[in-house]
Amino acid sequence: MRIIFLGTSGSMPTPSRAASAVAIRRKGEVILFDCGEGTQQRMAAARIGFRRPTRVFISHLHGDHVLGLPGLLQTMTMLRRERPLHLYGPQGILDFIKAFSYVLGVPGFPLEVYEITEGGVVFAGSEYKVEAVRADHDGECWSYALLEHPRPGRFHPERARRLGVSEGPLWRRLQLGGDVVLGGGRLVRSADVVDPPRRGRKVVYSGDTRPTEALAALAEGSDVLIHEATFDDSLAERAAEDGHTTASQAAETAAEARVGLLLLTHISSRYHDPSALLEQATAIFPNTRVAEDLMDVEVPL
Amino acid sequence: MRIIFLGTSGSMPTPSRAASAVAIRRKGEVILFDCGEGTQQRMAAARIGFRRPTRVFISHLHGDHVLGLPGLLQTMTMLRRERPLHLYGPQGILDFIKAFSYVLGVPGFPLEVYEITEGGVVFAGSEYKVEAVRADHDGECWSYALLEHPRPGRFHPERARRLGVSEGPLWRRLQLGGDVVLGGGRLVRSADVVDPPRRGRKVVYSGDTRPTEALAALAEGSDVLIHEATFDDSLAERAAEDGHTTASQAAETAAEARVGLLLLTHISSRYHDPSALLEQATAIFPNTRVAEDLMDVEVPL
Repeated sequence: MRIIFLGTSGSMPTPSRAASAVAIRRKGEVILFDCGEGTQQRMAAARIGFRRPTRVFISHLHGDHVLGLPGLLQTMTMLRRERPLHLYGPQGILDFIKAFSYVLGVPGFPLEVYEITEGGVVFAGSEYKVEAVRADHDGECWSYALLEHPRPGRFHPERARRLGVSEGPLWRRLQLGGDVVLGGGRLVRSADVVDPPRRGRKVVYSGDTRPTEALAALAEGSDVLIHEATFDDSLAERAAEDGHTTASQAAETAAEARVGLLLLTHISSRYHDPSALLEQATAIFPNTRVAEDLMDVEVPL
Repeated sequence: MRIIFLGTSGSMPTPSRAASAVAIRRKGEVILFDCGEGTQQRMAAARIGFRRPTRVFISHLHGDHVLGLPGLLQTMTMLRRERPLHLYGPQGILDFIKAFSYVLGVPGFPLEVYEITEGGVVFAGSEYKVEAVRADHDGECWSYALLEHPRPGRFHPERARRLGVSEGPLWRRLQLGGDVVLGGGRLVRSADVVDPPRRGRKVVYSGDTRPTEALAALAEGSDVLIHEATFDDSLAERAAEDGHTTASQAAETAAEARVGLLLLTHISSRYHDPSALLEQATAIFPNTRVAEDLMDVEVPL
C-alpha cells in the first residue's frame, strides 16, 4: 500500500501545491480521498492509471476538494474507461455531479454515487472497509478511515504434523480458524497451530476539520494519519474560526491516537516554507512529515 | 502587451501541460482566452494578480476549456476581489456558471456574463475591441481577435511652428486629427503636422477548430496568431473528424493571413516532444513557435 499526495494546498493552490487530493494505491486499485482541481494532472505525473478500479471519497463540497472531479471523469471517458467508478461523499454530491454533467455531458462509464447520511462503515469490501465520522468544519464534512481486514495468523505446519494432522483439507480448516476432531476423538484447536490474526493496515484522512474526539477515536492505532494542518500555532484562533487545525493540534491528535506516522497536508498558501509547521508538530509527535505534491509514502505490512 | 500561456495541452492535460488557457497582460488588465482546469495555479505561478481588471473569453463549453473557471472564481472570492469580472462565451455558459454556483456558492463580486449569439464585435472598450467569429468544432465554438484601436500618428511640433501654429490648444486639435484655420484665414491641416495613425496590435486566438476561411480573414495582418495544432500532419484525417487542425494547416492559415508570429497550442498528449509539429509548421510558415506552459511572449508596439 502506497500513499501518494496529489495535491497538498490549503484552500488556494500555489505554484507547487495543487488543491487537495490523496491517492492510495493498493493491489492495483486506486482509492482517492478528495479530488481538488488539478488531480488528473497529478495522477498523470504519478503514473496512476485512469482505468483502474477506483473509489473516490470526498470529504466535503468545497471547491478545493471537489473541483477536480469533472475533469477526471472527462479524461476517464476519453480514455474509454468501462469499469464503474464509485464515488462517496456528503449530501449534495449527486447534485454537483448532475450540475456539471448537464452542461459538459455525462461520464461514458457507470458512475455510482453514494451520499453519506450517517457515520459508520460506508464501504465494506472483501479486503478492507472504509469508515466515516463527522468532521467539524463549515457545513457537512467527513473524515475517513481505510481499515484492512485482519489477516489470518501464520500457520505452523510442523506443529500440525506433530499433533497428528497430516497435510490436506484439515490444514485449510485450521488455517481459517476452525478446530478439528481427529479419528481418535482428539481435538486439535486452530490456536494450537495458527498464530493470532494479524491486524490489517489502517490509514486515516481527516478532511478539513477542527480537532475532534471522534477523529482521535477513528485514528486510534492507525499506521498513518493524514491530517490537515492549515495553520501554524500562531494562527490558532483563525483556525478555530475557519474550522481548521493547527500543526500542534494535529500532533496532539496523533499522540492521543498513538498512530505510527503523521502526515500533514492542506497547507495554507502563506507557508512558502512549512518548516514552522513541522517544528511545532514534531515537538509533540516526532514521527511527523509535511506532505508535498507527489510525495509517495509506503505503508508496510 | 504580453502573451502568457497558462495551459497548452490538448483535451487531456499532461504532467507539463495544463488544460487550455492563455492570458494577455495589457496595461494592468488581464484578458484570458479559455480557462481550463489548472488556470488559477498557473496564474499564481506567472504572478498574474487575481484582483486586476479581467475579461475572460471562452471559446466553447468543453471541459478542458472551461473547468478552471469555478476554482478561479472561488480563489478571487477568497482574495476578496471586488471588481466585476466580465465573462464572454457561447450560449450555455450562464447555465454552467449557475450549475456549479448552485452547489459551491456564488462569487463574492459581480460576475457579468455575456452569451455570444452572433459573430462580430463582442466587446468594445476605449483602447481595444474583441471580435468573435464562429469556429468549426464540435458544437458552438468561437475564435477571437483582440484589436487595439489605431493610435494617433506622431505629432511634429517643429512643423506646426513653421506653419505659424504656436504651442497651445490648437496643437491638441491638430494632434486629434482636426484642421485649424489661422488668423489670416490660412488652413493648416492635421496631416501637415501629424503622421498617419499607427495601427494597434492584433492578437488572434483560434479556439478548437478545423481550418476555416473566416478564421484566416479574422487573423489577417495580426501580430500574433495563437492557433490550435492538436495533431501533426500524419493525423490529418483524425483532425478533420474531431474538429481540429494540424500543424501544417495552422501554418497555412498563418501564411494566408500574413501574420507576424504563429504560436501553436492545444498540443495532444501524444507528443512528449512537439518537434514534429514545429518542423511541419515552419516548412510553411517559418516564424512559428510551439507554446509551452508559462511561455511569455512580448507583442511589441
